[in-house]
Amino acid sequence: MEFQQNISLAIELLGTIAFAMSGAFAAMQKRFDPFGVLIISFVAAVGGGTIRDLLLDVPVFWMYDVIICLVIFLATVLAFIVKYFDKNFRVTLFLFDSFGLGLFTIIGIQKGLNADLHPIICVTLGTITGCFGGILRDILLNRIPLIFRKEIYATASIAGGTLFLLLLNFSTVTYTVLQVSTILLIVLIRTLAVKYHWQMPKFYSTRSDGEM
Amino acid sequence: MEFQQNISLAIELLGTIAFAMSGAFAAMQKRFDPFGVLIISFVAAVGGGTIRDLLLDVPVFWMYDVIICLVIFLATVLAFIVKYFDKNFRVTLFLFDSFGLGLFTIIGIQKGLNADLHPIICVTLGTITGCFGGILRDILLNRIPLIFRKEIYATASIAGGTLFLLLLNFSTVTYTVLQVSTILLIVLIRTLAVKYHWQMPKFYSTRSDGEM
Amino acid sequence: MEFQQNISLAIELLGTIAFAMSGAFAAMQKRFDPFGVLIISFVAAVGGGTIRDLLLDVPVFWMYDVIICLVIFLATVLAFIVKYFDKNFRVTLFLFDSFGLGLFTIIGIQKGLNADLHPIICVTLGTITGCFGGILRDILLNRIPLIFRKEIYATASIAGGTLFLLLLNFSTVTYTVLQVSTILLIVLIRTLAVKYHWQMPKFYSTRSDGEM
Repeated sequence: MEFQQNISLAIELLGTIAFAMSGAFAAMQKRFDPFGVLIISFVAAVGGGTIRDLLLDVPVFWMYDVIICLVIFLATVLAFIVKYFDKNFRVTLFLFDSFGLGLFTIIGIQKGLNADLHPIICVTLGTITGCFGGILRDILLNRIPLIFRKEIYATASIAGGTLFLLLLNFSTVTYTVLQVSTILLIVLIRTLAVKYHWQMPKFYSTRSDGEM
Repeated sequence: MEFQQNISLAIELLGTIAFAMSGAFAAMQKRFDPFGVLIISFVAAVGGGTIRDLLLDVPVFWMYDVIICLVIFLATVLAFIVKYFDKNFRVTLFLFDSFGLGLFTIIGIQKGLNADLHPIICVTLGTITGCFGGILRDILLNRIPLIFRKEIYATASIAGGTLFLLLLNFSTVTYTVLQVSTILLIVLIRTLAVKYHWQMPKFYSTRSDGEM
Repeated sequence: MEFQQNISLAIELLGTIAFAMSGAFAAMQKRFDPFGVLIISFVAAVGGGTIRDLLLDVPVFWMYDVIICLVIFLATVLAFIVKYFDKNFRVTLFLFDSFGLGLFTIIGIQKGLNADLHPIICVTLGTITGCFGGILRDILLNRIPLIFRKEIYATASIAGGTLFLLLLNFSTVTYTVLQVSTILLIVLIRTLAVKYHWQMPKFYSTRSDGEM
């Protein structure tokens, strides 16, 4: 039980670091000053979970948890250091973003299950937790959210979350194995999608209709 | 009484379908993949009501209502089918958007009245419910919200909502007639405004002052 | 005690007027119609405080306070009048924006202290109250938030807020003096930063890495 809690805590911290750094890198690219970078890191890291907690009407997780705030601060400092030594960090950013997506999707689903919500709503909460930090980050940077521009992003979150719920109900795999393997599946889908330029079929004509 | 409830339910479902499809069409225009389209549909359909419920501190309506989620899913599928057969859907989108605006404005005002709020706050909640789904949709698509670019949009919502409250307090018209006629008024204002290029007077010089 | 409450009320009203007018001016620049201008004013004035109250899970301040709504309406009308007579209002807008930042930062911190939160969280709430009205305003106008483009903005809020908390705990200055002087400090930092083009050091290479 305690081991399980430690795994969950480690997952939450890693996801927070991953998203904070993805926010910091994106903000540095737009030439924001250090406090601007810190705000984007913060929004990217806690945005999805904040929306989830507001929707669930439970206390917002970081309001009573200074550790999370310190972790985000340190992750932002780390991003400055990484940026200083390693100018070409596309692969790093991609991996962080993918791990954050997997980690936060599972946390969101778990919170939904704890509130006895319908599985469809739980998957929705998982997708919100996983995707909306990055969406808010990109809205603040005034660009179309990465999630809508890149291959198989929300799809990976929804697919991983659905599989997690199916295995939880219809298999005997232990919870920790389930958690870790779903996260790795989401990262794997994202990695293969980007490497081989997978795209979802669009089901509609791609001819431009002009601005409406 | 039961008839009244059925009318309200029908209004809510139609508004949801209208906004979900407006979101789906807009996302398809930006070449989003199916799950991206689904997310935009979802945000457009429930965004305004979600902000309203968070402000009222009541349970967010779709969290405990899987039917709404299924309706949005089906409306998105329907949008794909309509898009496949009818490439020129500007008029359809416009009508959906206008009906959604009217329908949701009235729902928002009703929720404000149920919470015993001041009439001015009720009209504000109606405008938020009617307009913020579309505003969030356009923010996610990284464009200036349609509501601020098009003729007489928020104006129609505020005017219709104010009239609804006035008639409710100072006339003997039945509630259902009041509801339906206010919605039709909002759609009518929007339609005439677009057809005859009505614009609100601006009350200020239109000379550009440059970017600040 | 009553004097202190009156000062706090005056601060809140002035901050509301300042942010509402900054929103109105920005919306007029984008040629919005009067109701569009009103919505932007409203969001700029109450946006930061609304997010703060949702995070704290306390009643959203303007929902039960029609006075605030009327003040925003009058501030918007005032902005139209000012715009009519004074076409070059850059300095006015800048001063309003800076005062709003200072005023709202302190209000946010006070609400955090009332809820017995950790000082770091209080400074975060102050920054959210001070900055997110302007951030939401700029998101609605589809531009990169001013806060990230202009010199020493969030920095002034965070610095002023931190000093306020330090002096509150480690000095014997009266509360009112503390309040007013912190606000003036934030305005001073902003004014000097803009006048002398202060910039935070960036701590990273400013060479472009291209769009990711």
